[in-house]
Parts: sequence; C-alpha cells; structure tokens
Amino acid sequence: MTSESIPELISFKVCPFVQRSAITLKEKNVDFKTTYVDLKNLPDWFADVSPLGKVPVLRVDDSIFFESAVIAEYLDERYSPSLHPDDLLQKARHRSWTEFASDITMNMFAMLHAKTEHDFQELKNKVAKQLTQVEKEIHPQGPFFAGDVFSLVDASYAPIFLRLYLIDQAYKLDIFPATGRIADWSNALLKRDSVIQSVVDDFEDIFMDYTKNSGSFLSQQIN
Amino acid sequence: MTSESIPELISFKVCPFVQRSAITLKEKNVDFKTTYVDLKNLPDWFADVSPLGKVPVLRVDDSIFFESAVIAEYLDERYSPSLHPDDLLQKARHRSWTEFASDITMNMFAMLHAKTEHDFQELKNKVAKQLTQVEKEIHPQGPFFAGDVFSLVDASYAPIFLRLYLIDQAYKLDIFPATGRIADWSNALLKRDSVIQSVVDDFEDIFMDYTKNSGSFLSQQIN
Repeated sequence: MTSESIPELISFKVCPFVQRSAITLKEKNVDFKTTYVDLKNLPDWFADVSPLGKVPVLRVDDSIFFESAVIAEYLDERYSPSLHPDDLLQKARHRSWTEFASDITMNMFAMLHAKTEHDFQELKNKVAKQLTQVEKEIHPQGPFFAGDVFSLVDASYAPIFLRLYLIDQAYKLDIFPATGRIADWSNALLKRDSVIQSVVDDFEDIFMDYTKNSGSFLSQQIN
Repeated sequence: MTSESIPELISFKVCPFVQRSAITLKEKNVDFKTTYVDLKNLPDWFADVSPLGKVPVLRVDDSIFFESAVIAEYLDERYSPSLHPDDLLQKARHRSWTEFASDITMNMFAMLHAKTEHDFQELKNKVAKQLTQVEKEIHPQGPFFAGDVFSLVDASYAPIFLRLYLIDQAYKLDIFPATGRIADWSNALLKRDSVIQSVVDDFEDIFMDYTKNSGSFLSQQIN
C-alpha cells in the first residue's frame, strides 16, 4: 500500500480550491510536491490531466483525479488522521456544508471580479447572507466548524476567510461582524499552521496583484 | 444503527441530479419515500432544508443533507452493496468522472434551454466533445463504466443518456454514434431496472412538456 510515489498537486497559486487540498495534505503531514501552472499560459500536458480544465488535480503514480472534494475524500481515506466525523449522518452533513463552501467561493470570486458596483454589491450581499446561513451550523463553542477538532469543512472555508481578510485590508468589505461566531472561526483558521503553510510565501502580493489587475469594480477601489 | 426512519428524498420530477440518488437507492433496494416539490411554487419549508435552493435533499430522521455526490457517498457507506471500487485510487477516479458527469449535465441543460441556434450548437458541440472524453475512460469490454459491475459513475451518466434519448425521438441530436462504446453504455443503462424505476411513470411526458415549454431554440424544433 505504501509503494506509491509521493502525491503531486497540480496548482494555480491563487486558487482557493487548490488551497483546500494543500491544507488537507498539511494537516495529515503528507509529503507531497506541488506543480504550478500558469493560468494564462497553460502547458500542453495540462489538458491531458485536467478534463475540465481546472485545478486542483492530484497525480499519484499513474492515477490522476480532479475536483477538490474528490481529492479530499481520497486523502482522508488514504492518510490518517481522518478529518471526517465517524457518524455517517454527521459526515454527510459535513460534506454538504463543504459543497456550500464551494458555492460561497464561486460567489466571492464573482464579487472580486464584478465589473460594476451594482453587481459587486449584489454578490457581496449574497456572500454575506450565505455566511449567516453557515453560521447557524457552527458548533456553539467553536472555534472550528465541529468544535475543537479541525475537519475537512474547515479546510474548505479557510480559503474564503483568507481572501476576505486580505481584501479587507485594502477595502473595507465588512462582510461579517468583527466579533461573533464567524469572526472567531475565521481568526482560528487564519492562525492555523496548515492554513498558513498552504499557500506560497508571497501569496498576499500575488493575490492582491491578481485582484488589482482584474479590471473589476473592486480593483478600481484598491488600486 | 437501524433505528432510523426510512430516508426521504426531496425531489423535482425532471431533475437529473435527483435521478442519480433514486437510481442509487433502487440499486441498493433501500426503502425510501419521495417528496416532490414544485419548482415554480416552492413550499415554505423548502428554504429550511435546502440552503442552496436545489434538489436533491435527503432527510434521515433529523438530519438533512444536500448535493447528489454527498447523498451518493452516504448511501454507499450506509447500505450494501458498495457501488464504489475497493481500490482507493480507482475510487477517486470514479468520483472524478462523476464530477465530470455533473459538468456534462449542466451543459446539456443549458443546451436544452439555449435561446438561439448558435448557443444551442455551441453547447451541443461541448456535450458531444465531453462524451468523447469520457468514452476513453470506459472499460473496453463495457457495458458499464467499470465493466460488468454497475457503479456510482453509471448512476450519474444514466440521467444524461435518458434525456438525450428522449429528445432524440423528437429532434435528431446525433450527439454520439449509434454504435460504439458510448452507445453500448447508454443502451445498457436505459434498460437497467434501477434506471427505469428511478423516474415517475409519466416521466417522458413531463420531461418533454418541460422542454417544449422552455421557450428555447430546441422547443421550437419539437413543438
């Protein structure tokens, strides 16, 4: 079972879905290598490993698989400790709220890249509303989704909180109150080693440049 | 472990993602009940059980979870026989191609509802191309994705093939050749009991009416 080579994570540096996989690998102390591709200048081999043209992709020996939820489930079954609850109904609930994180992530991305103030505000309201929906699901004592144990759900929300935090330094989004359950969750995730180590050292610069160069409503506010 | 009440599947009659869950439940001979909601007149309780406003939703006692992939994984762990391969790398590969089916399903839906011939053709080409991508992944002997054993991947492609087949009776889509690996796969799935029993008896009428009333380019060809 351990004759495989180390997993290769195929990545864009700013992608929040890749970050989920990197967090999960870090939480499990898995030795892995990262291959970065340039979104604007994709290598020829990329189409062969990514039928949907997206990242993350994980390659293990000759096996290639794609979609962050698929990679999370593989890593969770392959490497301990499990980041899922044992109870099957709780596990399903966790997976559902991870899917919900995907929807928030897409709305946040659309918000950052919205061309008009109207679209920006509409998407901002959507993200804010979705965070109030997930807030009701967080363990009352926190700090993580399921209480004091870090789980795969946390790995899917950390990339959202990191990006909202970085933007907030340049332009006040005020998407959630500075105190309360979501703030506590965000704070706990952003100081977690696996989250800090899941992105490149100059992530803040790369992410902010990427956002500033998007030609969006927001880019005009922070340039 | 068996003190739960029977699962309740919350459904729209024409939804291909709900059909995946129904096929999986049928394959496992699980006793379940279906609650249909009307897309155009959603009941008040729907927002409480479906944070993303989508179906399928599965309710088991007080637990509610959403997204077809989440429901599939829950059902697979809860009820035998497993419809996943044992090998973790193969399992991940299966899950990836199920995600790929979701993308085809969305493109097919967009094709059926495209307003202009140009958009219709573009989406049709996209669906056709995606089917040639998955064709390379099917077991060489077929008839199913992984050979002679039905798996969760099959449950995700059957709703696509059923809809393409029904449309083809009224308007020749010719999205894939009448013979070959995809045709064999489609034929095998459409005569499978679990697939036949996964939709309401008058599904053909309901689905065709739904498509005819969509105001799309295609609806003008089949009305």
